[in-house]
Amino acid sequence: MPILKTLASYTKSEFSADLVAGLIVAIMLVPQGMAYALLAGLPAQHGLYASMLPLFLYGLFGTSRYLAVGPVAIVSLLTSAVLSTLATPESTAYVSLAITLALMVAVIQITLGVLRIGFLVNFLSHPVLVGFSAAAAIVIGFSQVKHVLGVSVARTAHFYTDVAAVWQQLGNLNGTTLLMGTGGVVLLIYFKTLLKKHLLRLGVPETVATLSAKIGPLLVVLIGATLTATLALDTTANVAIIGPVPAGLPVLTLPSVDYATLRSLFPTAMAISFVGYMESISVAKSLASRKREKIGANMELFALGIANLGAAFTGGYPVTGGFSRSLVNYSAGARSTVASLITALLLTVAVVFLTPLFVYIPKAALAAIILVAVAGLIDLNAIRHVWTYDKRDALALVTSFFAVLFLGIETGILVGAALSLFLIIWRTSQPHVAVLGKLPTADIYRNVKRHTVQTWPEIALVRIDASLYFANTNHLEQTIAETVVAQPTLAHLVLVGTAINDVDYSALEALEGILHSLQDAKIALHLAAFKGPVLDKLAKSGFLTHLGASHIHLTTHAAMQQLGVAQRTNV
Amino acid sequence: MPILKTLASYTKSEFSADLVAGLIVAIMLVPQGMAYALLAGLPAQHGLYASMLPLFLYGLFGTSRYLAVGPVAIVSLLTSAVLSTLATPESTAYVSLAITLALMVAVIQITLGVLRIGFLVNFLSHPVLVGFSAAAAIVIGFSQVKHVLGVSVARTAHFYTDVAAVWQQLGNLNGTTLLMGTGGVVLLIYFKTLLKKHLLRLGVPETVATLSAKIGPLLVVLIGATLTATLALDTTANVAIIGPVPAGLPVLTLPSVDYATLRSLFPTAMAISFVGYMESISVAKSLASRKREKIGANMELFALGIANLGAAFTGGYPVTGGFSRSLVNYSAGARSTVASLITALLLTVAVVFLTPLFVYIPKAALAAIILVAVAGLIDLNAIRHVWTYDKRDALALVTSFFAVLFLGIETGILVGAALSLFLIIWRTSQPHVAVLGKLPTADIYRNVKRHTVQTWPEIALVRIDASLYFANTNHLEQTIAETVVAQPTLAHLVLVGTAINDVDYSALEALEGILHSLQDAKIALHLAAFKGPVLDKLAKSGFLTHLGASHIHLTTHAAMQQLGVAQRTNV
Repeated sequence: MPILKTLASYTKSEFSADLVAGLIVAIMLVPQGMAYALLAGLPAQHGLYASMLPLFLYGLFGTSRYLAVGPVAIVSLLTSAVLSTLATPESTAYVSLAITLALMVAVIQITLGVLRIGFLVNFLSHPVLVGFSAAAAIVIGFSQVKHVLGVSVARTAHFYTDVAAVWQQLGNLNGTTLLMGTGGVVLLIYFKTLLKKHLLRLGVPETVATLSAKIGPLLVVLIGATLTATLALDTTANVAIIGPVPAGLPVLTLPSVDYATLRSLFPTAMAISFVGYMESISVAKSLASRKREKIGANMELFALGIANLGAAFTGGYPVTGGFSRSLVNYSAGARSTVASLITALLLTVAVVFLTPLFVYIPKAALAAIILVAVAGLIDLNAIRHVWTYDKRDALALVTSFFAVLFLGIETGILVGAALSLFLIIWRTSQPHVAVLGKLPTADIYRNVKRHTVQTWPEIALVRIDASLYFANTNHLEQTIAETVVAQPTLAHLVLVGTAINDVDYSALEALEGILHSLQDAKIALHLAAFKGPVLDKLAKSGFLTHLGASHIHLTTHAAMQQLGVAQRTNV
Repeated sequence: MPILKTLASYTKSEFSADLVAGLIVAIMLVPQGMAYALLAGLPAQHGLYASMLPLFLYGLFGTSRYLAVGPVAIVSLLTSAVLSTLATPESTAYVSLAITLALMVAVIQITLGVLRIGFLVNFLSHPVLVGFSAAAAIVIGFSQVKHVLGVSVARTAHFYTDVAAVWQQLGNLNGTTLLMGTGGVVLLIYFKTLLKKHLLRLGVPETVATLSAKIGPLLVVLIGATLTATLALDTTANVAIIGPVPAGLPVLTLPSVDYATLRSLFPTAMAISFVGYMESISVAKSLASRKREKIGANMELFALGIANLGAAFTGGYPVTGGFSRSLVNYSAGARSTVASLITALLLTVAVVFLTPLFVYIPKAALAAIILVAVAGLIDLNAIRHVWTYDKRDALALVTSFFAVLFLGIETGILVGAALSLFLIIWRTSQPHVAVLGKLPTADIYRNVKRHTVQTWPEIALVRIDASLYFANTNHLEQTIAETVVAQPTLAHLVLVGTAINDVDYSALEALEGILHSLQDAKIALHLAAFKGPVLDKLAKSGFLTHLGASHIHLTTHAAMQQLGVAQRTNV
């Protein structure tokens, strides 16, 4: 348990640093937790529940000193996407499904972590994720627009029908709610963009200015609740409020588990596990390397899984390490995961003692927080950058964007995953292969395309810059077939193995096939500069016997000498 | 259309060679076609239907001179696996589903071929396929055992319950049928293994001996039918026969297409498209390179798709290029796809004129042909070889084998695909990365693990032997983080880009992140020996500006000179 290592050398100054950071994160987390729960389609208090035990457990098991775990926008959005197709938002059935989803994410993440196969998340392409997030933010962010307008609209199956439904209700909008919602959005945007600059100009120290900019959500909620309560806007102006929040700690819950539910939740559980881990590990790694520290990638996955297990048993929903709160934690001076323990403690205090104060929080205020948060998921900068940088990546981005917008978030996930896999297979199946020639001045062999080198009509030197395995052997066969066809006088084909670290069974079969075909075409196959362990493996398989010992050469130059061409040029 | 190119220079001697090869393949194909149709759960004549128009179309569009298209064991087996869960074998509904399946395979293959993305089949790992085929051969081969025993047993949901059901019926076996079935198996095994050797010993020329060994199936069918007809075994000894086969050409059919059917057939259609293409292209490539010829991989895929389209419209079921028949075609001297046209013509003649002779073919004889054919799918040699060669490959093989045996063929396909993808992501996510040092005697930089080289405590040289993209950037980040932690005095980190052909957007983001983290840790990042196009792309993105022009070096040695260490050692 990483916390024990921390506590072994824990100092008083570290504790006071963690205390401050923990407090600041808690101040951000209370309004954000409630807002994200609403985004996920859950009653607001479940966002707070998801911010207690999970944070505490991450504090015990996490390896990142700065990561702030809890509800985050993209995970809330994925949760809402799948659950709203299965139950009515904020209903008991919906809450129970959210708990089951958290349990599934926990099981997936713990399993991947224990089996040390966290590398699987590498299969997600960033441009695909950027496109996915942007479209999902639009789809789900729009679901909050009705709260800002103060109209009541049931969610429909498609994004465009949602838009149409809200459009039809525009005449019924509630002016007070709209004022409050847009006021909240304006205030939040000001806090996010200009406040820090203004404070710095006033001579406020940088750290204080940075952290002040983060209390926007709290302020919006406080102002909104105070106005509503004092002016009784909920009754006089019909402003929707979140209403009575059950006081006290969540009851320990047992997630319901039946096969049909698990099956329908599975793709989203996978997506949340992967996307959540990716967001978390990338911020954890980035913060760690700033201090020359290391993160245990699989341990992190395990710790997130344990945090989600905590969420599942205390009425929460899936959590992960959030980008912005972790940055706040880091800037506020957190020194260890003790900061997370403190945040968890403060949230518990809030849930036990402060819930009566939450009654009058207007839904429009939380909707404003969500809108500003999901707008951050539309990474215009990245979109523009991808567009100019790489047209293939841009195509992937656009495809996943429109898949989500027109086919829905769930189908969008599948399209994004398929697209990522497609790109991996495409790239993997064409390893770099170079045809070599000899530098005129030295016994060194280089790519004929990049150097002026000597070649011989009866010899082809082919170097493969990758380990050989089933996904790329086809390319090797193809290259050799093309070389053979292009060089009609070919008598010796030398494979240069400097970059080959492994030859799997499929590649061994391919080599056997190549050997046979070349023999039929009266071309001798040679291996040059293959690594020791690879040669041992090939020897054990019998391939080297089929090849003949005289066709195996320590270096490319040795092969060329034996073929009688290297000396010729050296003379 | 490749056939036009062939005909432009077609000679009489080529025609007579193609005529002989086409005839011999037709002789093999008549009994095999019927047997494989039975294996696929279809009435026998549908195997013949699948051997007419598809072969003709392949003859027009195919690029392999030697490939013999038609029903093959593994595809028949996959067809049976999915269709028997949806309809009763040999029923009209079943035939209609088979036609729909052929249409889906056609659409998939034509699409992949036209989009030139045939490389996608590379994602299938051979050991996974070996395990899959072996288990599927056992499961479906066993479905023929009842025909050899002459007992009647309905197929159940699981392999082990099938075995139990046949076991219970053992008391009711039909002695005559058993004798005929086992006789057929023994004869076929003799033809397959010893006949050629015996013929050669008798002085028969090699080609004749080789081809004689291939008429086993025809002989079994002829003997079986003659015995049954002359002794009236179908009535006197209750021997099951295939019965009246509709005479004449198949009626043009229109595949039925509804969404639910398409959805349930889709995974198998993908599997058939991929596995069929893999079998086909591997035999086509192997035969072509024996003669230094080339195969158009995507054109082949297109041609197979067109062949399957033919199957869909003439009452057939999915076809592909078969391994053994193609070898026979090649050995028999085929010179072009005209041989396929001839086979198609002969099959048509057989269907029009010979069907009355098929009535008395005992099912046991066809079952014997199937048993011997599917036994060939259990590649014991490969299994043993994989086992000793590579334990990871062996694990993949065993997993897919038992998945098919215990979870069923359809689930087995999904397990196999997931396993293959897992292996690809695993391998791809860890590209070869080398930390370099300088050879003492020359300005050449090599892997510290493999050479005695000079290194400097303030400098790390890291070479990545792969193009950088989303699936492998994590490994790069990890390696750099480890290098930084391991070398506390590090001040310069040099990335050596000799093997990097592309940097995608995710990798660009990773490089930006690495640059930031290193800057925070007071380490300078350098790029050395990056290729021109890659540098251009990085320059356009602004990364090189962030990096600083003085941190970009033409060669590794230039970087070391500028860092002031290369001269030092050269003095």
